[in-house]
Amino acid sequence: MRERKVDVFMKKNGLKIGDLIKVVEKDGTVYEGIVMPPYELSPGETLTIKLDNGYNIGVLIDAIESIEVVEKAKEAPKMEFREVLPRKEGLPDVTILGTGGTIASRIDYKTGAVHAAFTAEELAKAVPEIFDIANITPKLLFNIMSEDMKPEYWKRIAREAAKALNSGEDGVVIAHGTDTMGYTSAALSFMLGNLTKPVVLVGSQRSSDRPSSDAATNLICATRMATADAAEVMVVMHGETGDTYCLAHRGTKVRKMHTSRRDTFRSINDVPIAKVWPDGKIEYLRDDYRKRSEGEVEVDDRFEERVAILKIYPGITSELLEFLVDKGYKGIVLEGTGLGHTPNDMIPAIERAVESGVAVCMTSQCLYGRVNLNVYSTGRRLLKAGVIPCEDMLPETAYVKLGWVLGHTDDLGEVKKMMLTNYAGEITPYTRFDTFLR
Amino acid sequence: MRERKVDVFMKKNGLKIGDLIKVVEKDGTVYEGIVMPPYELSPGETLTIKLDNGYNIGVLIDAIESIEVVEKAKEAPKMEFREVLPRKEGLPDVTILGTGGTIASRIDYKTGAVHAAFTAEELAKAVPEIFDIANITPKLLFNIMSEDMKPEYWKRIAREAAKALNSGEDGVVIAHGTDTMGYTSAALSFMLGNLTKPVVLVGSQRSSDRPSSDAATNLICATRMATADAAEVMVVMHGETGDTYCLAHRGTKVRKMHTSRRDTFRSINDVPIAKVWPDGKIEYLRDDYRKRSEGEVEVDDRFEERVAILKIYPGITSELLEFLVDKGYKGIVLEGTGLGHTPNDMIPAIERAVESGVAVCMTSQCLYGRVNLNVYSTGRRLLKAGVIPCEDMLPETAYVKLGWVLGHTDDLGEVKKMMLTNYAGEITPYTRFDTFLR
Repeated sequence: MRERKVDVFMKKNGLKIGDLIKVVEKDGTVYEGIVMPPYELSPGETLTIKLDNGYNIGVLIDAIESIEVVEKAKEAPKMEFREVLPRKEGLPDVTILGTGGTIASRIDYKTGAVHAAFTAEELAKAVPEIFDIANITPKLLFNIMSEDMKPEYWKRIAREAAKALNSGEDGVVIAHGTDTMGYTSAALSFMLGNLTKPVVLVGSQRSSDRPSSDAATNLICATRMATADAAEVMVVMHGETGDTYCLAHRGTKVRKMHTSRRDTFRSINDVPIAKVWPDGKIEYLRDDYRKRSEGEVEVDDRFEERVAILKIYPGITSELLEFLVDKGYKGIVLEGTGLGHTPNDMIPAIERAVESGVAVCMTSQCLYGRVNLNVYSTGRRLLKAGVIPCEDMLPETAYVKLGWVLGHTDDLGEVKKMMLTNYAGEITPYTRFDTFLR
Repeated sequence: MRERKVDVFMKKNGLKIGDLIKVVEKDGTVYEGIVMPPYELSPGETLTIKLDNGYNIGVLIDAIESIEVVEKAKEAPKMEFREVLPRKEGLPDVTILGTGGTIASRIDYKTGAVHAAFTAEELAKAVPEIFDIANITPKLLFNIMSEDMKPEYWKRIAREAAKALNSGEDGVVIAHGTDTMGYTSAALSFMLGNLTKPVVLVGSQRSSDRPSSDAATNLICATRMATADAAEVMVVMHGETGDTYCLAHRGTKVRKMHTSRRDTFRSINDVPIAKVWPDGKIEYLRDDYRKRSEGEVEVDDRFEERVAILKIYPGITSELLEFLVDKGYKGIVLEGTGLGHTPNDMIPAIERAVESGVAVCMTSQCLYGRVNLNVYSTGRRLLKAGVIPCEDMLPETAYVKLGWVLGHTDDLGEVKKMMLTNYAGEITPYTRFDTFLR
């Protein structure tokens, strides 16, 4: 990897991870905090420091006027990417892949020691319970905030998960930021074929150095599901605001529905797969989930990145859609109103998009319910224009799926066929009445 | 109004509203149905016919191969735009403004008589109960599906509502399609100043010629709220799936959350104003709502239409944002992830947008909860770039508000101040715990 601005800056100033420093910015702002490891995949324009309140901030290198080391780090940081504790016979084997986010970041800022919380030792110190559930192999893939997640990272996670499962692990847990966890769980649901073991995404809404953190309960329940008899891509997060149980949601039907609550993740238009308690009790809420089986997990991560989501609103013009077509986008997921509508004066532009080979898919901004383009004339005109109605798929899931489908074919007939084929529970045959706002 | 294609076509073929016709399209498709009145404000490219199953379809004039009149309309259609029944002393006065949508369209296709269901006679036939609640003055403003709603129509509704209230009516009911009702209720909340009487939006999820229609209950409850002591812009729709009661939601906090359920409208991050029963019982669920008072209702409908909503997703590039800036948009509402984030590599483009005078506002695609740009470094970078955090406003409400604010000022400091000023309950000071998924 080329040397980034932050690497040069740290070298020039003799900064080590864990140093307590005072930074003065050109506009006079002063920050005091501990130097954090630069994110492996960040552009490297910023120096990350952890403030006394526990939050990380990024200071633009170019904005720094002066810097002063208040206290050198007490010990050299550990950044082992893989470390295995002695294996206990009789326990299942679980690999925990770190990708970043609140759950993965931990700093012992009392001593000044800094870890990208992903050695077995660190995990054991933070959440010792998981080592009684399984033999844990932690592996830090990268360390990014989930708002910076991209399709190329989805592919890397899919390959690493498959590699672990095919090398004999009983399950995989993926520690992930919560912002885009639902997109990643959908991506893995499509990219991992012939799934024979559990793949569980987990995150936390409060970092582990805050008393109200949900990190421990979520990670324990996620490890439980990773050793359970359910071969699905799942999101395991708090099921209610207390620390009593978690819910295991199907990866294609789950959405972050609240900015800050711990029980933010919800199954939309579907029932969660299971309730999971930290002590290992699992109550399955349905019986149509995939169970463990034999065989190699396959990775099919072909993905067309020129796909966009376009939300419809009163006053929207055709400009944005036409721009996407002009720019060579291959697919557009519309987040329509109601049953799946756009203003009628957008329909000619949609017709032209389809005629020029762009796959245009319809979902609803209502989120709950199912699109139906047969009820009103606007819908029928959209159908006639070639719009693909995405049943009860979430807009986010339809976006991920469309990128994956277009990675396999650009024939619009075939795209439609694949979009309407249920690959990973993303389409339910009918919507259960008791799934609204649950 | 200039003569549209559909007017010419109907004249040429001697078609009358109410005629039963058979249309053959160039591709061989055959439709049989009753000729409906062309929407007043539609571009006029289509002939609207009502099929036997009760649905309306639009047939493109250019696609018609041949046409045959199966049966002439039995009576001339009534299209009076205003008709008042004898006034009953002692009852309050309520104007019902028709704008279109499922609740407003009704055809007696057995007899072939067609009405844009908006004479007093028609309303009395459909929902006689409302004439015992108030002296009803119906007025059809236009007849469009709500997916075709636009800021210019919001202005017209605002002016007509104010006109009715200022001429002595006790309340106004606005019949509106459900797709974009939440946008319109937000627009009226900002456009109607010094509101001294109720303004109630109402719609239906099932048309009144279907047995499961919610049109009657909703219209009765809406009329009840229009005579109640609550001077707010409200949406009144089914509160649960049965026909027992409706909820009156504050116009800036309400959202359509399900494509087809009758209890689709929900207050987000807030408690509804009241429960309303058809028999007139009203249970207020809070005490901080505006009550009736004296004084003229003011209309302030200045509105900047060059505003857009942009939803953030993994893999989004800066292209769309840059395109909007290049096209001269004055405001952009981002529907960010989690607490209000974009990928870090979009931030330079956001900085440039703000530098060139574009107001960039942040909301969350979680819908529930509040944005907070102070928790993570990405958020702080966005704040530093000049992004305006929209508290717990719905993305849709923030979009409408930004257009309204930009209609008043293009000074970004002033825009920020106005966006963070609570004009119509769009910002709650803190989020009540019991409002999640209710």
